[in-house]
Formats: sequence, structure tokens, C-alpha cells
Amino acid sequence: MAKDMTLLWGSGSPPCWRIQIMLEEKQLQGYNQKLLAFEKMEHKSQEVLDINPRGQLPAFKCGNHILNESYAACFFLENQYKSQGNKLIPDSPDAQALMYQRMFEAFTLGQKMADVIYYNYKVPEEERHDSAVQRNKEALTAELKLWEGYLNKTDCCLAGKEFTLADVLVFPGVAYLFRFGLCSERYPALAKYYTSLKDRPSIKATWPPTWQSTPAQDTLKTI
Amino acid sequence: MAKDMTLLWGSGSPPCWRIQIMLEEKQLQGYNQKLLAFEKMEHKSQEVLDINPRGQLPAFKCGNHILNESYAACFFLENQYKSQGNKLIPDSPDAQALMYQRMFEAFTLGQKMADVIYYNYKVPEEERHDSAVQRNKEALTAELKLWEGYLNKTDCCLAGKEFTLADVLVFPGVAYLFRFGLCSERYPALAKYYTSLKDRPSIKATWPPTWQSTPAQDTLKTI
Repeated sequence: MAKDMTLLWGSGSPPCWRIQIMLEEKQLQGYNQKLLAFEKMEHKSQEVLDINPRGQLPAFKCGNHILNESYAACFFLENQYKSQGNKLIPDSPDAQALMYQRMFEAFTLGQKMADVIYYNYKVPEEERHDSAVQRNKEALTAELKLWEGYLNKTDCCLAGKEFTLADVLVFPGVAYLFRFGLCSERYPALAKYYTSLKDRPSIKATWPPTWQSTPAQDTLKTI
Repeated sequence: MAKDMTLLWGSGSPPCWRIQIMLEEKQLQGYNQKLLAFEKMEHKSQEVLDINPRGQLPAFKCGNHILNESYAACFFLENQYKSQGNKLIPDSPDAQALMYQRMFEAFTLGQKMADVIYYNYKVPEEERHDSAVQRNKEALTAELKLWEGYLNKTDCCLAGKEFTLADVLVFPGVAYLFRFGLCSERYPALAKYYTSLKDRPSIKATWPPTWQSTPAQDTLKTI
């Protein structure tokens, strides 16, 4: 089945990494894959555009189905391979409600993280303002405090003891925060979550290769 | 069952409206609800904060479960009430893949729409730039063209003939575009989608009350 799947991906991109973790969790190793380089603009190549008209990575095909949105790919894979590999949607309504709520709140976390990390990339030089940078940092700090609170109240994973689809979808973003220098001492619950999951087989097997060969950055160290 | 649910909502807010449509689709009428006014800052009231610490609407409680993210609420309701009301996740893998892909692409549409409609609300006066306004408009136009293409290829609904969870989640945003003056002639496929669904019972029953009593706006008429 995995032989019918093709993933074009970029190293370190949380959306790409989500699908890679998901494929491991569902025992769908052996899919076709190609690592492309953002810095060479390979995400704008015809090969990508043929699958993803936005010219973004991931570009993911599962048989004839195009599932470039990482959340879409993960939901689809869980639904199609319910009884294969790990079951990632819990039966308990309590865990299920928490799983859904956290995975969708993570869009806000991702947005606020991107507003800080990509400010200079997204905003042309003549439109930049220190006041905007400061406001973005404050918004990210407030958001991270919410997540500290959430993680302080759970056992290990986002929706309780079990590893769920929420962790597949949210962990890569949390790892990204630390890759960009988030301070473990100021965010101990996030750091504990990161540490407790980073050696999980599906995550370890798909760790971004460029993160192993280049040093971490310090963009978020003052957050 | 619906008596255990409480929805605090604001008129015209796509995330609130999604949950209202969903509750109709699943025959969960009779829930507790309260219409609050954004312009009176009622979304920052203690009543809201007790359910939604972000001080945003919707604030939605389903029994003891807090599901303030509209996507989370809709997924949870579909899962908990699978055999009640309309089934909103199709069995066919084709329709299912398309449904997931479109509902998550809609986050990008919503973001680009918000960047244009709320520019003055989000960006302080001293940080505003005509070049940014222009860029946001171009990004929204490009995004809308993608959706025109998608809708040109489907029958009636986003994932084919059947009304699915993708329509529950995306329709309110499309209605919002037209409420803010999007030109039907320039976007005929979006307009056809809007027209074909606006009288669906679940949608008609929950149409934003303030839209009936105040005129539409023209923010998007040049898009």
C-alpha cells in the first residue's frame, strides 16, 4: 500500500514532519519520497507544482488522492488504516474532546510562532516596525503560557496518557520552538513534553536530517 | 443530549456559525445558547472567559467537554453522534480525501480573507502601508482563483455531490466573502456554491441575525 504513496518533503518543516511521523505510526514505511531543498527553491519546481498547485511542501499523493494539507493527510491515513499500526483517535470522549481541541488550537500557536520567526522573511524591509516585532513576541509569549498550563495538567501527551493524533500534529511545532532557541527553563512543561516524545520511534526515525548537521538557532531565546 | 450543551456566540462569526450549522445537521436543537455582542466587548466577559480562556467566541461546552475551536467541536459532534441526523464524513475514499483536503486548505483562505478585511483593525495606524494592503489583496485574489477552480470541478458541494463536514466548515467563510462585497460576476463558481447552499435548512435556520438587519459591506468589491 505504501508503494502507492509519494511524499515530497523539506527537512525541518513541521507540516512535512507530521506526515512522516503519521506514516511511521501506521506502519506505512516504504513509501516513495524525495527530500527537496527550500533554499534551492525546489518547492517551486514543476515536480511539486504537479501535486501541490501552491508550490509548497509537503506535496503528498496517496494513490490518486492528493493530500497536501498535513492535517488532511493524517486524518485520511488514520481513517483508511484504522486497524493498522497505532490507533490514534481514542475511544474515550474525554480524551477525544481534548485531542480535537488541542490539535486545532495549535493553528494559533503555529501562526504566532511564524509571526516571530519569519518576520523578516514575510515583511519587506521598508514595512518593518520594532513595535510590531515587540507585539508579535508578546503574543507568542502569551500563547506559550497557555500551552504550559495545558501541559502541566496532562500526563505525558496532549490528550492524556495516550499518544494521539494531536501529538502527531503538534509535536513537530514544539520541536521547532526548541530548535529556534526556546528556553527550557522558562517553559518547563513544554520542555518536558518535548523530551518525553523526542525518542519515540516514529519521531526519532523521521528527525529532520538538517537538524543533525547544523547548529540550532537562537531566534526565540528571549521569549 | 442537546440540553447538556452551551454555546456562547456572536452573529456573523464564521467559527460560531460552523457549530450552529453542525448542531442543526446532527439534530441537536434545543441546546443552551446566548448571543453576545462583539461591539460591546462581551467576548471578553467573565462568562466567556470561564469557558474560553482566549476570550473569543465561540465558547462551547458539550457536557463537561470544552470545544471552543470550531473544527474541534464539529469533529467531536460528528464522532459522538455518527448515526444521528446527517452523516457528514463520506465512506468513499475519493470524497473523504477531497473533503479533508478542502477543509484544511480553508485555513489559508480564512487567513488571507482576514488579512484584507481586518487590516485596519489588526495593524496600528502608524504601521500601515499601502504596499502591504496591495500585497494582501493580491494574495486573496490568487487564493480565490484556486477555489474558483476547485468549485468549477465539483457538483454542488466541496467534496462532490454530498454535503459533508467540509461544507459545514467552509460555507460560513464563503458567505462572509459575499457579505463583505465579493463580486459574484468575477467569482461565478464561488457565487454558485453560495447560492446553492444558502437555503439549506441547517444554514437558513442559523443565518446571522445581524446580517438580516444591516446592509452588506463593500470591503472586497475590488477583489
